[in-house]
Amino acid sequence: MKNAQKLVAPLLEAAQSAGATRGFVAPARWAARASEEIVAVDNTHKQAQSVISVPSRLLMGPGPANAHPRVLNAQALPLLGHMHPPFLHIMDEMSEGLRYALQTKSKYTLMISGTGHAGMEAAIANLVEPGDKVLVGNAGIWGERVGILSRRYNADVVEIKCPTGETFSYADLKKAVETHKPKVLFLCQGESSTGTHQSLAGVGELCRANGTLLLVDTVCSLGGVPLFADAWGVDCIYSGSQKCLSGPPGAAPFFMSERAMEKLAKRKTPPATYNLDLNLIGDYWGWWNKRSYHHTGPVSTFYAMREALQIVAEEGLEPMWARHQEMHHRLWDGLRSLGLKPFVEKEEHRLITVNTIKVPEGVDWAKVVKHAMDEYSLEIAGGLGPTAGKVWRIGIMGFNAKPQNVDLVIDAFRAGLKQQGKL
Amino acid sequence: MKNAQKLVAPLLEAAQSAGATRGFVAPARWAARASEEIVAVDNTHKQAQSVISVPSRLLMGPGPANAHPRVLNAQALPLLGHMHPPFLHIMDEMSEGLRYALQTKSKYTLMISGTGHAGMEAAIANLVEPGDKVLVGNAGIWGERVGILSRRYNADVVEIKCPTGETFSYADLKKAVETHKPKVLFLCQGESSTGTHQSLAGVGELCRANGTLLLVDTVCSLGGVPLFADAWGVDCIYSGSQKCLSGPPGAAPFFMSERAMEKLAKRKTPPATYNLDLNLIGDYWGWWNKRSYHHTGPVSTFYAMREALQIVAEEGLEPMWARHQEMHHRLWDGLRSLGLKPFVEKEEHRLITVNTIKVPEGVDWAKVVKHAMDEYSLEIAGGLGPTAGKVWRIGIMGFNAKPQNVDLVIDAFRAGLKQQGKL
Repeated sequence: MKNAQKLVAPLLEAAQSAGATRGFVAPARWAARASEEIVAVDNTHKQAQSVISVPSRLLMGPGPANAHPRVLNAQALPLLGHMHPPFLHIMDEMSEGLRYALQTKSKYTLMISGTGHAGMEAAIANLVEPGDKVLVGNAGIWGERVGILSRRYNADVVEIKCPTGETFSYADLKKAVETHKPKVLFLCQGESSTGTHQSLAGVGELCRANGTLLLVDTVCSLGGVPLFADAWGVDCIYSGSQKCLSGPPGAAPFFMSERAMEKLAKRKTPPATYNLDLNLIGDYWGWWNKRSYHHTGPVSTFYAMREALQIVAEEGLEPMWARHQEMHHRLWDGLRSLGLKPFVEKEEHRLITVNTIKVPEGVDWAKVVKHAMDEYSLEIAGGLGPTAGKVWRIGIMGFNAKPQNVDLVIDAFRAGLKQQGKL
Repeated sequence: MKNAQKLVAPLLEAAQSAGATRGFVAPARWAARASEEIVAVDNTHKQAQSVISVPSRLLMGPGPANAHPRVLNAQALPLLGHMHPPFLHIMDEMSEGLRYALQTKSKYTLMISGTGHAGMEAAIANLVEPGDKVLVGNAGIWGERVGILSRRYNADVVEIKCPTGETFSYADLKKAVETHKPKVLFLCQGESSTGTHQSLAGVGELCRANGTLLLVDTVCSLGGVPLFADAWGVDCIYSGSQKCLSGPPGAAPFFMSERAMEKLAKRKTPPATYNLDLNLIGDYWGWWNKRSYHHTGPVSTFYAMREALQIVAEEGLEPMWARHQEMHHRLWDGLRSLGLKPFVEKEEHRLITVNTIKVPEGVDWAKVVKHAMDEYSLEIAGGLGPTAGKVWRIGIMGFNAKPQNVDLVIDAFRAGLKQQGKL
């Protein structure tokens, strides 16, 4: 190796002459080919001692929201082995906590070791075989992304679209499902790019009647709005940890119905991804009453999510939904008093967890965002995808969904608009 | 939906009669089809208040090792947004910390948002196009797994094997590379299932001469033994956070050389995985001097890894390697005094970070493991894959590689063998 020959090993020589105690001592086998193996350590990229800088911010955008302090602190607990019984017990507690949060009796709940995107990919990779028809309800960037992702797994993707800021009616969905008879229908319950809430009323039944599996993205809605996985006939759900569940990003709540599991069992080919193969991950989570090593679960993140789900159970779903709804109304009472209007015209399409606010004519939206961050250390977000430049987005999610935070958001809008002479 | 009709909504009725303040109030649009959408919350899986149970354990198996307390505590810091400049700065600090730890000047370092397995899959998914020949050095379960994983990505896999407890000689590798002219050669530097250390001497040059990219697994070796990514001509590396780097599992150190990046740029098809597509992830990490949203990085885990890499820089690579080596010798001085012998016969094949110890004739290995856990709250591991039932495995890794821990392991072996009347 040319580079190595030039560098030759002062490290090795120094260590050999110094004797055994300090300094790295290359074993004899390396000395024989030292010019190839041991070169001098390059300190160019060695960083000086410095303290991690994490300013305190109130995250009222589309997520992450601030995690519950009890959840964050659980991550400071000492690590356990990923196959130790006390850790497996914590995994069981999460499976059970998910059953409650998702309102299912299904045995098949778990946390994907990754963020919401990993959950999305796990769903598609496992439910879809090459050539399967997937009907994607594209109401914003999440539907769009599921379309892109599904094509990579060689799905036959059919997309339906609705106007930005609206959702699919039952009639839209009925027509599309009956026309295409897809293997999988994808819908996003809370489309955070537009601030819309897709109703699932009757959709599960429709899917069952047409041999279709119903896959639902609940990343920014789970815990904030009602969801009844079993009663609504949903077959697969993925979600996010860092939204209404008040956890850190890095684990994706996941659920499969019995019907979805039948499809998985009948696959002719394994999923292209090994890392997200539910046959293997499910075995780690005890879906088949044993435990096999597949990967090392993110221990600290799982501690956090165990706490997050425990907190959901402690508060209870109904009070949690009510709290999110109340804060959504409180937000809009305030915003309306400033003359601001919802981007989503019709109340029946409006999502309460991620709120989209029309940027009024002549207002510099980015300046309001910057002002909130500079003056209040408060995150207000702009639009994304189809709403970029048209809206602000305010999250009412989890631990952050409380009066003092909502009021601060309203104050920040008031001050931001005043600064531009718009109030 | 039949289920839903039976359940009808006491929740909805209660809320409606109670008025607006507490209790979830279904919007008017739901009332119209309440029997479909709002059903009673089922509390079967609602867990009673309970405290998370995390016993304190010394993890001296093949990993995870105990994380550094400073690293664990960084996870309790408040969340930042995944696109906030202070968070992007923390990502930059990690990229730089990886350059030092991996000894590279490459711009292309980052943390994969997942465990070591996600790193393995990212490497294969991005380096390999369908039909590409991949030469896999299978010296234990990691090589085997890379073979399985590569086949899922439609690689043309050629496996070479070596006897369990040995490694590939340069001559073996030269012959195989020159015969097969693979697009990618995979080697595992530290094969934790057998306790062997694969020398990379001359392999980078060999690969360059044959148009082959060199992919190296350093999951259990990075930080414990020398590695010089640039000088040794390595093209792609993935590693683990929870071994010698003393972090929690959930982030995989990752590196690409310029040559590997050229291959990525020339792909005719995108990788099958969207979630691990380096063209997208690299953009989030600033590889092309901008920052695009791809997924939400695991914020807390990244805080942890920023600290872990800072601690590596503070200690310095040479002292770190020396410490691991010293503790390895200390371990074997103790084990030999108990009559125990290394599973890996030849010193030149032996890994210092994961040590495999032959189970002597007539000793119940599992009883020794159980005794250590019961009496010392100490993890000693058994074998895995080709070494199952034949060895114990002891990790000398990161924060755990210190005299008091090594001495406790020796004490535990002494007591465990005495318990069986073998000492």
